[in-house]
Amino acid sequence: MLINCAAYEGGTKLADLPVDQISDYLQRPGCFVWVALRDSTDVELTQMQLEFGLHDLAVEDARHGHQRPKIEEYGDIVFAVMHSVEFSPTDELVVGEVCVFVGPNFVLSVRNHSHQGFLGVRARAEREPHLLKHGSGFVFYALMDAVVDRYFPIIDALETDLEGVEEQIFQRGTARQNIERLYGLKQKIGVVKHAVTPLMDAASKLTSGRVPAVCAGNRDYFRDVYDHLTRMNASLDALRDTIGTAIQVNLSMVTIEESEVTKRLAAWAGIFAVATAFAGIWGMNFEHMPELKWAWGYPAAVGLIAATCGLLYHRFRRAGWL
Amino acid sequence: MLINCAAYEGGTKLADLPVDQISDYLQRPGCFVWVALRDSTDVELTQMQLEFGLHDLAVEDARHGHQRPKIEEYGDIVFAVMHSVEFSPTDELVVGEVCVFVGPNFVLSVRNHSHQGFLGVRARAEREPHLLKHGSGFVFYALMDAVVDRYFPIIDALETDLEGVEEQIFQRGTARQNIERLYGLKQKIGVVKHAVTPLMDAASKLTSGRVPAVCAGNRDYFRDVYDHLTRMNASLDALRDTIGTAIQVNLSMVTIEESEVTKRLAAWAGIFAVATAFAGIWGMNFEHMPELKWAWGYPAAVGLIAATCGLLYHRFRRAGWL
Amino acid sequence: MLINCAAYEGGTKLADLPVDQISDYLQRPGCFVWVALRDSTDVELTQMQLEFGLHDLAVEDARHGHQRPKIEEYGDIVFAVMHSVEFSPTDELVVGEVCVFVGPNFVLSVRNHSHQGFLGVRARAEREPHLLKHGSGFVFYALMDAVVDRYFPIIDALETDLEGVEEQIFQRGTARQNIERLYGLKQKIGVVKHAVTPLMDAASKLTSGRVPAVCAGNRDYFRDVYDHLTRMNASLDALRDTIGTAIQVNLSMVTIEESEVTKRLAAWAGIFAVATAFAGIWGMNFEHMPELKWAWGYPAAVGLIAATCGLLYHRFRRAGWL
Amino acid sequence: MLINCAAYEGGTKLADLPVDQISDYLQRPGCFVWVALRDSTDVELTQMQLEFGLHDLAVEDARHGHQRPKIEEYGDIVFAVMHSVEFSPTDELVVGEVCVFVGPNFVLSVRNHSHQGFLGVRARAEREPHLLKHGSGFVFYALMDAVVDRYFPIIDALETDLEGVEEQIFQRGTARQNIERLYGLKQKIGVVKHAVTPLMDAASKLTSGRVPAVCAGNRDYFRDVYDHLTRMNASLDALRDTIGTAIQVNLSMVTIEESEVTKRLAAWAGIFAVATAFAGIWGMNFEHMPELKWAWGYPAAVGLIAATCGLLYHRFRRAGWL
Amino acid sequence: MLINCAAYEGGTKLADLPVDQISDYLQRPGCFVWVALRDSTDVELTQMQLEFGLHDLAVEDARHGHQRPKIEEYGDIVFAVMHSVEFSPTDELVVGEVCVFVGPNFVLSVRNHSHQGFLGVRARAEREPHLLKHGSGFVFYALMDAVVDRYFPIIDALETDLEGVEEQIFQRGTARQNIERLYGLKQKIGVVKHAVTPLMDAASKLTSGRVPAVCAGNRDYFRDVYDHLTRMNASLDALRDTIGTAIQVNLSMVTIEESEVTKRLAAWAGIFAVATAFAGIWGMNFEHMPELKWAWGYPAAVGLIAATCGLLYHRFRRAGWL
Repeated sequence: MLINCAAYEGGTKLADLPVDQISDYLQRPGCFVWVALRDSTDVELTQMQLEFGLHDLAVEDARHGHQRPKIEEYGDIVFAVMHSVEFSPTDELVVGEVCVFVGPNFVLSVRNHSHQGFLGVRARAEREPHLLKHGSGFVFYALMDAVVDRYFPIIDALETDLEGVEEQIFQRGTARQNIERLYGLKQKIGVVKHAVTPLMDAASKLTSGRVPAVCAGNRDYFRDVYDHLTRMNASLDALRDTIGTAIQVNLSMVTIEESEVTKRLAAWAGIFAVATAFAGIWGMNFEHMPELKWAWGYPAAVGLIAATCGLLYHRFRRAGWL
Repeated sequence: MLINCAAYEGGTKLADLPVDQISDYLQRPGCFVWVALRDSTDVELTQMQLEFGLHDLAVEDARHGHQRPKIEEYGDIVFAVMHSVEFSPTDELVVGEVCVFVGPNFVLSVRNHSHQGFLGVRARAEREPHLLKHGSGFVFYALMDAVVDRYFPIIDALETDLEGVEEQIFQRGTARQNIERLYGLKQKIGVVKHAVTPLMDAASKLTSGRVPAVCAGNRDYFRDVYDHLTRMNASLDALRDTIGTAIQVNLSMVTIEESEVTKRLAAWAGIFAVATAFAGIWGMNFEHMPELKWAWGYPAAVGLIAATCGLLYHRFRRAGWL
Repeated sequence: MLINCAAYEGGTKLADLPVDQISDYLQRPGCFVWVALRDSTDVELTQMQLEFGLHDLAVEDARHGHQRPKIEEYGDIVFAVMHSVEFSPTDELVVGEVCVFVGPNFVLSVRNHSHQGFLGVRARAEREPHLLKHGSGFVFYALMDAVVDRYFPIIDALETDLEGVEEQIFQRGTARQNIERLYGLKQKIGVVKHAVTPLMDAASKLTSGRVPAVCAGNRDYFRDVYDHLTRMNASLDALRDTIGTAIQVNLSMVTIEESEVTKRLAAWAGIFAVATAFAGIWGMNFEHMPELKWAWGYPAAVGLIAATCGLLYHRFRRAGWL
Repeated sequence: MLINCAAYEGGTKLADLPVDQISDYLQRPGCFVWVALRDSTDVELTQMQLEFGLHDLAVEDARHGHQRPKIEEYGDIVFAVMHSVEFSPTDELVVGEVCVFVGPNFVLSVRNHSHQGFLGVRARAEREPHLLKHGSGFVFYALMDAVVDRYFPIIDALETDLEGVEEQIFQRGTARQNIERLYGLKQKIGVVKHAVTPLMDAASKLTSGRVPAVCAGNRDYFRDVYDHLTRMNASLDALRDTIGTAIQVNLSMVTIEESEVTKRLAAWAGIFAVATAFAGIWGMNFEHMPELKWAWGYPAAVGLIAATCGLLYHRFRRAGWL
Repeated sequence: MLINCAAYEGGTKLADLPVDQISDYLQRPGCFVWVALRDSTDVELTQMQLEFGLHDLAVEDARHGHQRPKIEEYGDIVFAVMHSVEFSPTDELVVGEVCVFVGPNFVLSVRNHSHQGFLGVRARAEREPHLLKHGSGFVFYALMDAVVDRYFPIIDALETDLEGVEEQIFQRGTARQNIERLYGLKQKIGVVKHAVTPLMDAASKLTSGRVPAVCAGNRDYFRDVYDHLTRMNASLDALRDTIGTAIQVNLSMVTIEESEVTKRLAAWAGIFAVATAFAGIWGMNFEHMPELKWAWGYPAAVGLIAATCGLLYHRFRRAGWL
């Protein structure tokens, strides 16, 4: 679906265009066309391919989706694939794809399976003509920056989630729940990392060394995006590392808890085993058991049993088993 | 076994050739010969070596098999070894080998221990003469692309398998089965990674830097293959990482389950130990045990025992042990 | 808040300046202005941006904070972000930010959320005019050195903490406490590493290769800072590795302890089970149990029970179970 | 001990030489001398050092042994250290050392603590004069190839061993044995890896970049050896990784098994505790226990006990505890 | 404390010098001065700084100690920091520092907290004038070689220690001791690795690429030292890896042992529970229990109990639980 199609010159919008007038504006020097598609159909993509002279392989990638984030050059056209990451209503992560084709005189963005649009990007760009006049490369930066900035709240949410687990990891009886949450978190981090890391690697090529011509004038801006991606990547790595440790710690806590239960079990088993053994002795049917005939035999026996159990209880207590 | 032998010029097939006419066509400028062998014999390989002037070491490798995937240059001839990976009827992974020799005017593919053929590749290439006229390098790309594309369903199957394990990893009593499946999965991933990673490393040399002459014109295409391999490699690494975590989580779940069982055991042991100890006390044979003579002694005793056990049960319940 | 603003020439202070005279001194050759802000407001930053011609993106970073440590060049101006790390009164780590803008004729330091100031740095620099006359690059070094030197006591404190854990890791009954402390330590190390490692990577670019012009004359000094960061980074890695092992060892100790308790439990359970079983036998109500009538039956029985239990005790003792 | 000493020219043997004639042949252009020593004495090494002008440090290394595999250049002489790895009769790995000095007109191999000789290498080389005429560099390749090829059966044996462990890792009661075997395997893999990895790193320098002059003409051959080493290295890494997982899995299996035993223990303990408690109740000595006087009291009691136990048994069975 | 101060020319000693004559000899072409300090005071270091024109930062490092091993250039002076590692009488590792300043015409070694001196190095150097005439660079090599060679016995001792642990790791009841020893070993390896790895990295810069002028003529010698360091580094990595596995294996052994104890406990508990339950049955006070009146009731009952227990014992034995 076509969202938007407009021509720009010297930082200001010339006109909204119908698709069939694109080629007229492409000729005009100093002018560039900015087209936005969403959940594009085959027909639309083919039309765009013809208008802008896009490479077969790049269009294939945009059509099929399921690409890793990447930035490739086909001649003087830059083709970028980025992942959009959003929370679904049920708190699952949904991954969409944003493909951007950038030529000297055009930008084409194709967004699939993603709820978040780029109208804000366009509006802001149009309000800042001194920046927009840097041309298609700047628009590319603005789109990339928008995609990347939307990762921050996701990563923050994951960090908050992890802190939630950390708060209860040293509490008894939460192990099962913790491990499920940690595993779920680890999966989500994997999804975000899949979006961030390859894009970071790709973005680094826009900041130094041989930078594609359309991006060359905006190197500082791409370095800023690259910097954000580096930061996110470090955060994700730190998260992942912490989760690894937390899983280990959780296992340790379970084992510690089990060992405490074992000690208690041992202690109580010991105390009752003593009582039962004593009672068993005086329950034997020998004829000549003089204490059985004593008037105070019974209370003495019960007292002895109670005393022994009490002593054991006391010692177990002191040893920290009870 | 010879599968196919044909000469091409300007993107279209000239003729199917008997093997002994190969050398005639090799002279012809702008023409290349495409030969496909399957489970090749020594005689066939030696014949091909003579026809195309292949290097001893490369032919040795094709003959003996058991090579790592690689792409090597011998003079102006490129020699590639790739692994084919297929599921056997019993769901095991079967690894075959595809060797490709590419010279300026010929392509020779040798496929061993592999059920999947390349007739489809040839058919499609012949339907697209504008691509096929890029020459032997394009055929090399088409073969490589075919081999690599067949890894995708394998990796998908492994991912589905892992999801199956993940669904039951937090369920009680599945630990033994999970760990077996995870171990099996890890082994299979190792097999696929063995096919993918070295080929990825080798393919990267066809996309940038000093690219072999026969591949130079198809750099964008090889980058596409390289890109697929990078994506697969990342998927396999993610799978491997997830399996590692899943094994750890499975161990944690076993320990948690055991700790729950230990608590239950401790609780019930405690309850019955109390009952037995009480009964033991009143089973002692002292003469002077006044309560034994009371009319309501017995029901009172049983009641006391039941009440104590009930109290314990209640407390264990509240503590989450039962 | 403006802390300080002064102009220097040939290593000595010319004058403390009001902010609106900065531009006068910037013109003066061989002179540089050194401004220090703390918890800067938007107004102050905008003023400084105008005075010194700072890049939008750099000022954005200084304003928003939450940057990774980094050193960037915008034209001939170097922009550095560093983390200050301090212990809060409750022994938590507090991270602040120190941003430094260095131009050929000025240094601007902005310090946010940090209690530690740089007055000492300025005082020492003014006492050493032979060094200060190296210009703004040397001031940059001095600030960086001050920030980095303050990491050392933090790392020392963490090392001391870890040694405290190590001292009790092989003692019984400390496992729960150890694991909490190790987890806390690991988190803190992460915080410090976040400050150190990216700064180390950035600092390496000031010591070799294409060094920014303002730093070029102080290469040996920056190498010294880089060296400190390398050392810290190695210490932190070693700490982290040790913590990983300590967590593992702690788990092992818990398991060993549990296994010892299990053995003891097994041993005592065995001893009492034997006593109870014997007593149960002689508590049976068969009519023809001749030993029950023997005069010495009872003491003999008790003696036999005691002897058996003693024997068991002795053997368990020898086996190391008790 | 001198094994062999001969001069070659144009690919064919000129003569077997006594050691003191070596220098005569070294002068002769197009001729090279090939000397093989075994468990060399100091005297022999000193003699060779004088004949061939070897560097002090290299001769030191050959004399003392215990070197890592490496390939070094001393002027135009290449000095290589390789490890030979063999199984001892008791299935231990025995590491020997093969040092090779290669100059433009000589090859000197020194083999220590190794049972396997290189007579086969010499015989094959002499049968292939078209290859041997490549000179001393080709002999170096042939020796290296022979050493490296002998690693394959070792690695195969280790893989077979691991498969043996894998077959029983999911069987009950084999854990202790598995862990011992896995640990032993890991040690052996370390030994082989010690031989393979540094040699691989060293060999890579003979295939590309600035290749030593004596090896330059045989680059394709050294690439073949390098390729073998890469493959072995990958196999060893895969083995090591699998062993790591297998150790983890083995631990999981022990824990799973223990948890099954704990469940069984809990179940049977429960069943008998119930029986004992019931019997204890009716073993109490209260005077007014009417059921004790019933004619069918005893069978009813036994029946009740048996029924309760049966019910418990049934439920434990269904829960998978028994 | 000044240990030694002498001037050398053409490989032979000219004279032992008082410190104040150093400058005379520094002028003399072809001559170099070799000074050795031990536990140097501030005064001595300042004096040396003046004599040899050392850089402030390097002298600072030598004064404060606690540096990582490193090799730095200050102009044409090379400054090296190395760690000496020794066993204390109580078998702890003691780390000292050896700083070496090497200029074209002098060598200054400063050794702190280290018992081992370099008199042997000087003596050997003076006995080999053909080597010593390589100048100050060779002396630097000789000192470095001496420091590095002293790591070998330390590493050997650690390896022997680990073998000691390995011998008993599969024996029952040694787990606690093993884990303590493994943890201690790991710490010690960390200390040695701290000395070896950074020095290795630094030494690699003396063997290839842009080598400092004073070392350039002794490149082969420094490569030899580098080689030793590489070997040590590999040994330490292997040790560390083995310790990691050994800790894991030790944990497995504890778990296996515990699982065996649990089985035994379960088996004996089962046997006695059966005996007690039977005895309890016949200890009930029902009036109509005909077997109680049988003449052979008691022996039959005891026989039945014994038989049942025997049967259970037999079955547990067969199952490997006892």
